[in-house]
Amino acid sequence: MTKIKATNITWHEGHVSRQERETLLNQKGTLVWLTGLSASGKSTIAFTVEHALVQRGHLAFVLDGDNVRHGLNKNLGFSEEDRMENIRRIGEVGKLYVDTGIITLTSFISPYRRDRDANRALLQPDEFIEVFVTAPIDVCEERDPKGLYKKARAGEIKGFTGIDDPYEEPLNPELVIHTDKVSPQEASVQIISLLEKNGRIPALDA
Amino acid sequence: MTKIKATNITWHEGHVSRQERETLLNQKGTLVWLTGLSASGKSTIAFTVEHALVQRGHLAFVLDGDNVRHGLNKNLGFSEEDRMENIRRIGEVGKLYVDTGIITLTSFISPYRRDRDANRALLQPDEFIEVFVTAPIDVCEERDPKGLYKKARAGEIKGFTGIDDPYEEPLNPELVIHTDKVSPQEASVQIISLLEKNGRIPALDA
Repeated sequence: MTKIKATNITWHEGHVSRQERETLLNQKGTLVWLTGLSASGKSTIAFTVEHALVQRGHLAFVLDGDNVRHGLNKNLGFSEEDRMENIRRIGEVGKLYVDTGIITLTSFISPYRRDRDANRALLQPDEFIEVFVTAPIDVCEERDPKGLYKKARAGEIKGFTGIDDPYEEPLNPELVIHTDKVSPQEASVQIISLLEKNGRIPALDA
Repeated sequence: MTKIKATNITWHEGHVSRQERETLLNQKGTLVWLTGLSASGKSTIAFTVEHALVQRGHLAFVLDGDNVRHGLNKNLGFSEEDRMENIRRIGEVGKLYVDTGIITLTSFISPYRRDRDANRALLQPDEFIEVFVTAPIDVCEERDPKGLYKKARAGEIKGFTGIDDPYEEPLNPELVIHTDKVSPQEASVQIISLLEKNGRIPALDA
């Protein structure tokens, strides 16, 4: 190690450790994987958690269709192969984010168990939290903020999850949130409490 | 906004702004794109900068072959098309990292001007810093820490940049670092000084 006076830095060789970054951030990198039907409430919950965490001084970030489908995955369509690659890439970016120490929330339908489990397998057990966001499909269909169910029913969209493509429910998610029964705020409290309980973020003083 | 007493949180709708995250981190998300021949010194410089920034309390992260080629881009080879897609994906991940507020360093040969310029175009001018890391090719070939030049000369690797594939030098990089003349530490001081000068991180008090 060489001391350079001008910048007051001790020089290191090699990589910054995961632990050094996590100490800096006062949190442990975690991937909170939200899965569920279109209009089940994933994004609202993800952004509510993100806001609450940032307000508490934590670095959180949401990966969703808006910032992934139009960027990293803009060369993917909706074939089975492309959907699998879509979720695979998101899992790999999630792993990079976790390695960076960030509380990362992903908001994608991610209908296939196999693809979600493959992403879980990229991480340590305590780094991956699968949250099944669910409401009866007729509730989702009534919400339909983007008019997608309507288009799927009209046959304008093919292979729409829940209509003519399957959604495989998680078998052992860390959390199940029924959005026809709890508010996004209540859902967020559940997720944040789990992050605290698992030691990913420190609990607030009572 | 609803005040929930139990967790002392004010609930927000919508996204956390870039500015909120940058205030939290006391830095501005920036992509420092290191480009140059194999063994020119990109990785050593990237990890030296990363260490120095983390030591100053900043969140920095290096994207390199180790964490990208074996993960996100493990389904890509070395054809021209795959190389282009490799650099495109790294640029898109870099953009996500910049949006998260992170000082991000990428360490890839990235030989083609077109690919680097496409990534520059994803970001605002002040968010992208292209650093040309260079040494005479015989110096790089003598270093050859991974024995790649040797294999390329023996014909065991085809399409190796600098041997039988071109390296297109940046026309207007923000920095040029001659690693046959300056140490990794001196190179790091140059990069960190530029980050300070451009207001990406606050300058240290004298």
